[in-house]
Amino acid sequence: MTTNDDKPGRLRVADSNARDVRSLPPVSETFPNSTQVLEGELGVPFREITLAGDNRPLRVYDTTGPVNLDPRKGLPKRRQAWIDARRASSDGNFSQMHYARAGVITEEMRFCALREATTAEFVRDEVAAGRAIIPANIGHLELEPMIIGRKFLVKVNANIGNSAVGSSIEEEVEKLQWSIRWGADTVMDLSTGKDIRATREWILRNSPVPIGTVPIYQALEKVKGRVEDLNIDIFMETLVEQAEQGVDYFTIHAGVLLRYVPLTAKRMTGIVSRGGSIMAKWCLHHHRENFLYTEFERICELMTRYDVSFSLGDGLRPGSIADANDAAQFGELTTLGELTKVAWKHDVQVMIEGPGHVPMHKIKENMDLELELCHEAPFYTLGPLTTDIAPGYDHITSAIGAAMIGSFGCAMLCYVTPKEHLGLPDKNDVRDGVIAYKIAAHAADLAKGHPGAQDRDDALSKARFEFRWHDQFNLALDPMRAREYHDETLPAEPAKTAHFCSMCGPHFCSMKLSADIRALGEDAIEQGLADKAAEFRELGGELYLPHASGDPAE
Amino acid sequence: MTTNDDKPGRLRVADSNARDVRSLPPVSETFPNSTQVLEGELGVPFREITLAGDNRPLRVYDTTGPVNLDPRKGLPKRRQAWIDARRASSDGNFSQMHYARAGVITEEMRFCALREATTAEFVRDEVAAGRAIIPANIGHLELEPMIIGRKFLVKVNANIGNSAVGSSIEEEVEKLQWSIRWGADTVMDLSTGKDIRATREWILRNSPVPIGTVPIYQALEKVKGRVEDLNIDIFMETLVEQAEQGVDYFTIHAGVLLRYVPLTAKRMTGIVSRGGSIMAKWCLHHHRENFLYTEFERICELMTRYDVSFSLGDGLRPGSIADANDAAQFGELTTLGELTKVAWKHDVQVMIEGPGHVPMHKIKENMDLELELCHEAPFYTLGPLTTDIAPGYDHITSAIGAAMIGSFGCAMLCYVTPKEHLGLPDKNDVRDGVIAYKIAAHAADLAKGHPGAQDRDDALSKARFEFRWHDQFNLALDPMRAREYHDETLPAEPAKTAHFCSMCGPHFCSMKLSADIRALGEDAIEQGLADKAAEFRELGGELYLPHASGDPAE
Repeated sequence: MTTNDDKPGRLRVADSNARDVRSLPPVSETFPNSTQVLEGELGVPFREITLAGDNRPLRVYDTTGPVNLDPRKGLPKRRQAWIDARRASSDGNFSQMHYARAGVITEEMRFCALREATTAEFVRDEVAAGRAIIPANIGHLELEPMIIGRKFLVKVNANIGNSAVGSSIEEEVEKLQWSIRWGADTVMDLSTGKDIRATREWILRNSPVPIGTVPIYQALEKVKGRVEDLNIDIFMETLVEQAEQGVDYFTIHAGVLLRYVPLTAKRMTGIVSRGGSIMAKWCLHHHRENFLYTEFERICELMTRYDVSFSLGDGLRPGSIADANDAAQFGELTTLGELTKVAWKHDVQVMIEGPGHVPMHKIKENMDLELELCHEAPFYTLGPLTTDIAPGYDHITSAIGAAMIGSFGCAMLCYVTPKEHLGLPDKNDVRDGVIAYKIAAHAADLAKGHPGAQDRDDALSKARFEFRWHDQFNLALDPMRAREYHDETLPAEPAKTAHFCSMCGPHFCSMKLSADIRALGEDAIEQGLADKAAEFRELGGELYLPHASGDPAE
Repeated sequence: MTTNDDKPGRLRVADSNARDVRSLPPVSETFPNSTQVLEGELGVPFREITLAGDNRPLRVYDTTGPVNLDPRKGLPKRRQAWIDARRASSDGNFSQMHYARAGVITEEMRFCALREATTAEFVRDEVAAGRAIIPANIGHLELEPMIIGRKFLVKVNANIGNSAVGSSIEEEVEKLQWSIRWGADTVMDLSTGKDIRATREWILRNSPVPIGTVPIYQALEKVKGRVEDLNIDIFMETLVEQAEQGVDYFTIHAGVLLRYVPLTAKRMTGIVSRGGSIMAKWCLHHHRENFLYTEFERICELMTRYDVSFSLGDGLRPGSIADANDAAQFGELTTLGELTKVAWKHDVQVMIEGPGHVPMHKIKENMDLELELCHEAPFYTLGPLTTDIAPGYDHITSAIGAAMIGSFGCAMLCYVTPKEHLGLPDKNDVRDGVIAYKIAAHAADLAKGHPGAQDRDDALSKARFEFRWHDQFNLALDPMRAREYHDETLPAEPAKTAHFCSMCGPHFCSMKLSADIRALGEDAIEQGLADKAAEFRELGGELYLPHASGDPAE
């Protein structure tokens, strides 16, 4: 049995064991030839990748945060002055939506606008309309604000956190840092093991990205794991504690209504959300309505005081292909839509959580229904996994679904690691999961035609075509792995400018041949084009030209 | 410089170095609790997975072939009697399409029908119409026939083969065996290094799956790498040699026409197909039309004598997001459509190769155009990769595109390994590539509603929900990896029946909680459902029920 953790979570070495929390390689090693640049008076971070020759450096979105040499000290509190000023003239509602609806542009909005290469007015209007959120607890002073909405870059969340059978505070801080190193936009601390509060404190004080939690986990620890002993007071006390620490968004399973629970009885895999199953058990035990639902307005009021955003949990999401898009799932989604309107009445920011396990042909319906039923609040999905048959590879089964739902308008994709269904992810799994999801998010940005998204593809492809191997590696999502794979067979430095790799060898490299073709002369090619075009027109412009010798046409 | 390899490729230990070619773990280790069953008089293989309790065993499609203890001896020649009988009464055209169009049902068609749980008549009609192919050279006697067409299960091809800078015959045989172990439906030998012919012989004699090649590679070796010295005679000689060995399909880049080459001049990455760039260079050098195109009918005649299928190569496929769906690519596709009709005039089986690098929103156009321009001949695509920015992870960037195009009707997906663009894949990369593509193919089968496809998902999810850990592993595409990941944190045998894993620990396992919910009594749940339903009707059937305490509705 895990024990309740009520110690305040101060950053003390005493809280940690002997393991070194600073074991990450420096940024210069994971991203060679990259420099962090801070733009404007707000110091909005970008990573600038320097390229060879006269190729212009490429700037990419940067989640890595300030250099963090000592996690025991935490990150600089960059929002301190903004929040201090805001407190002085507040009506008690600190929500970004509250300001947006009043026409105010906050520092957070300006920060997001610069990050996303858009205007602060556009950011404000999207937040005011509820189509985007800026999760930014006024107590999370270390935060570099970011925005979640379908008109912005698709975001990625990484889940970390210990369980009763594994991990330590040091490991979780390391996973946080590893997550943001590879590009996670937000991180959820899902700890359910020991030192829940202290773990969260370490994470928050070291996180430049928004931190989300599922408060019912800690509430359940407070009642020693007895679901039936949960009640709104213990829950509110937990929310206050976590909001005070600076948690930016709460997953709250307020849509798991008593009447939906029986709809899960015939499912292949029942209820697979931890929070959902806790609330379902509570509802059934007491045969009463979910207290998160009945007391929802009390929760909203609390959220306004810290600007914690709702992530309305999909407690009844399908856990298998068989259960996708069923009555329980869509019933809950309808309720989440109702709750969205309630939250918006209080100017509380809302995003909606989504599945889960969904076959490809049922994905679009999820996105379309979410937009309709939840009034265009941002959607935040876990995958979805497009098949159940590949445990050990669920970062891939789900990256397929994630890319698709991202292209349909999902605003944030919650990663799935290779360990999903099997065990607690370690640092390596975090890297694999984040990269798989950066791929899905970027593929979705390309598919949506997001302005500028293709610049990085173009820069990398140009480097590839010109055999600038170092540039190709450095422009990659994971330069370390790209270089490592290349060097397995051709480790010597001269191979980094060679016009081939071991895949094809020197004589069969199509890119080299292609360069040879160009070397036949741009002019000759242009001339050839002109000749051929003339010939084509002469012959009447038929696409298929019969050829004198051996005409293969019918 | 690699040397031309004209030695006959006999299976002799002398051809190999000291490395043990039998280093694969036995099937019982990669797939515990599985047995190969051979069904019907033709001995069609299935893998039957035995499950715990009274759960019925699950049969899955099996590509692993007969137990192969000694690759020096090759596999049994199961098609010997079929082919002998057919030779006795042949008109010289051995193509499956030729038989199908004559109304004949071959053993190969019956074999495929049983494998695919359909009728032999349906198989015959699809082959006759050109909508499906059965690549089955009459000299590849070791083959277990399989069918490629969009009304059948989506298939996966694995590319193997050495290059001038790496690998040996033993490694390639091992990669072949490793490919089929994980589920590759066909294998292409793309060797361009030394011992091309001997390598191919070893591969063919040990392959139960169709083998494809790109004959221009060997032809180029014959002219010592001088592209301009290539001609139709050397090419035909190469085709005869490979057809005699038993190659089942040839990739032939006959659609790279002289007039299309200038269209690639302004591309981001020029021509990225090796075969395409060879033919483009030849065309430009001689300023003459591609001889594969002008002599296409000579090639067709040869194909009929062995029943080698065409895989009409997409020599101008895009090699970057920037080049997707351009004039060069679709110009070539139009020509491939014309050539398809020419091949069909000779009753030669045809599939069409496709891209490449394509952003998600441009994938469907590829499939739709292929069906239209190529008269529903099966499509066979490489990925497509949905972004260029993740070298080292291109099995994932491309599995996304592969799953999508599979769901739109692509019949076979050519895998991409994590080493793509970086180096020659090794055995581990082959495993990662094949599994990623089995996922894509299966996700596509589910999306297409292929009959029975969901059975495996259902069996695995049921095992997962019932905490039958061994069954969950054994039903997975890769039981070894699933078990290994689970055992990293909970290695002890009792954990294999435990009602939790290290991901959530014992108190937060939603599946355990879900089981608890069910334990509250099916009857209680049913009763709850009935009560609620009655209440719902009483209140007028509004979906949203206001609640007495703390109504959160507006």
